[in-house]
Amino acid sequence: MSETRIAFEELVSLLERVFLKHGTSAATARVLARNCASAQRDGSDSHGVFRIPGYLSTLASGWVDGRAEPRVEDCAPGFVAVDAGNGFAQPALEAGRGLLMEKVRENGIALMAIRNSHHFAALWPDVEPFAREGLVALALVNSMACVVPAGGRKPLFGTNPISFAAPRSGHDPLVFDLATSAIAHGDVQIAAKEGKTLPEGYGVDADGQPTRDPQRILDGGALLPFGGYKGSALSMMVELLAAALTGGNFSFEFDWSGHPGAKTPWTGELIIVIDPARGAGSNFADRTETLVQAMVDAGQQRQPGDRRYRQRAEAEQLGVAINEDDLAYLKGLVN
Amino acid sequence: MSETRIAFEELVSLLERVFLKHGTSAATARVLARNCASAQRDGSDSHGVFRIPGYLSTLASGWVDGRAEPRVEDCAPGFVAVDAGNGFAQPALEAGRGLLMEKVRENGIALMAIRNSHHFAALWPDVEPFAREGLVALALVNSMACVVPAGGRKPLFGTNPISFAAPRSGHDPLVFDLATSAIAHGDVQIAAKEGKTLPEGYGVDADGQPTRDPQRILDGGALLPFGGYKGSALSMMVELLAAALTGGNFSFEFDWSGHPGAKTPWTGELIIVIDPARGAGSNFADRTETLVQAMVDAGQQRQPGDRRYRQRAEAEQLGVAINEDDLAYLKGLVN
Repeated sequence: MSETRIAFEELVSLLERVFLKHGTSAATARVLARNCASAQRDGSDSHGVFRIPGYLSTLASGWVDGRAEPRVEDCAPGFVAVDAGNGFAQPALEAGRGLLMEKVRENGIALMAIRNSHHFAALWPDVEPFAREGLVALALVNSMACVVPAGGRKPLFGTNPISFAAPRSGHDPLVFDLATSAIAHGDVQIAAKEGKTLPEGYGVDADGQPTRDPQRILDGGALLPFGGYKGSALSMMVELLAAALTGGNFSFEFDWSGHPGAKTPWTGELIIVIDPARGAGSNFADRTETLVQAMVDAGQQRQPGDRRYRQRAEAEQLGVAINEDDLAYLKGLVN
Repeated sequence: MSETRIAFEELVSLLERVFLKHGTSAATARVLARNCASAQRDGSDSHGVFRIPGYLSTLASGWVDGRAEPRVEDCAPGFVAVDAGNGFAQPALEAGRGLLMEKVRENGIALMAIRNSHHFAALWPDVEPFAREGLVALALVNSMACVVPAGGRKPLFGTNPISFAAPRSGHDPLVFDLATSAIAHGDVQIAAKEGKTLPEGYGVDADGQPTRDPQRILDGGALLPFGGYKGSALSMMVELLAAALTGGNFSFEFDWSGHPGAKTPWTGELIIVIDPARGAGSNFADRTETLVQAMVDAGQQRQPGDRRYRQRAEAEQLGVAINEDDLAYLKGLVN
């Protein structure tokens, strides 16, 4: 596949037209287009344009409401809830962001509990903007049952990522976004597409037996948590915080069998934001920088988020890298 | 070593006298004694009576102030800070708990940032009591540099545990307490004492080479994070939240070389508490129970905290299990 480049804003605009034409409101198209284009720009391949067919088949199936209007609820001085109305999580976050920011600045900590929402994207775009305003943010989202809990036999948890962002003096924020599964589901799909073999310990086949073949994982098999029982405990925590606490579905609770083509998990998301300036850590971003320098001294060359920022800088110079076929596909969708 | 049994409150009282006689205030003795006895009762062997020699040599060295008076600061409607005054973290938590609870009930979420504190105990006792009041709690504490970051060569992070507690209808809370290192430091010490070999991937020797010999890890070697770069990222997050955010020391920042016998990390701790009843998750404890039943159905027989609760129930019947030599040692300390 040969690669081409497209200006970031041009890609955003193209994706916006794609979403609009396939059943979303203008607000949702605007948010999802920027989100998806950002993932493509930053080299988050499994969450970029790669996801568009999944978005569109889901919208076509009637599983998600692309025109949902999120309802923001002011539950307590530190607690914002958003009912996404069976729409996407990102427009819900956007709708509640202003109130959340007020609460964080006032209280030092606040949370946003999004329920009744679909999250089909990378999680780092949900936290990075908070760190750019000097805040610390933690986001958790559950997904669809595809991970076997520690000691178990059947899939139950989602890939359940945890994303964290912290400001860093004089640099882009420190941001990680990690699936609590041994591998992200999108990466299994990419490995299968490319005919690659996975390392050991990533998944099991339909009989619950360990396999290194990504296709066997996709054909009724399941993923394993990262790091054994510890990753499994963290994945359980994500279920509790992103679903039980928000009022969303657990990863095993929704039934999309009546909606062929549906790909988006219908769950919940929790975002906790802290203002470090309210405590003794008023020089927080300097302290982050001290830690990063110590990590470099200890031999850790690459910091969380570095690869994305490098790709982003390159994209700002040269445009966003995209397969020619994928670009033609997007253009075909709006003609 | 032959084992005997002692009534829980008798052990608490004995430990209280031990602490009092070795340089702590009455308040600190009371809190640490109950904490240590609880770990012994629940089978958290590496944090029970096993830790007493370390506590006492640290107190004797002048490294920690056993008579420190924690200073509670009301920083914002959702933000309590406590300066432990170079004392232990648990009395600091105790001192700030009332204010934290008020803030959680009022705001839906609040945090306590403890700094200038020593944490030498299990972390689950810090969160379990919140879950018993229907709240969700997350605690993070950094420790002393003994874990090599992903891709690095030198130890930098502490074992940096993450502990989480959630209420569960009709049952003891769901509680986990996991080191972000592949193994807890106390367990390496126990393995070395017992002459055992560790699984692969747990640590490196003084030359940074992988080793399965716990003694080589202790002799200038270091631990590895659990789960590779993901566990390493979580350990970094713990450094940022427990140290940078609180105003405490990073795990690599303190220098105890002038205090021979010092064993306690002089760092910080962050505790985040959420009231799920303020949002849509008003039936949170029922939802936890739904998730636990699904985990059991998926084949996960043992839930986080189960082993502790089983040992606790047994101790309530028969008394707390303790080696006869350890009990004689404790009694000798107060005669």
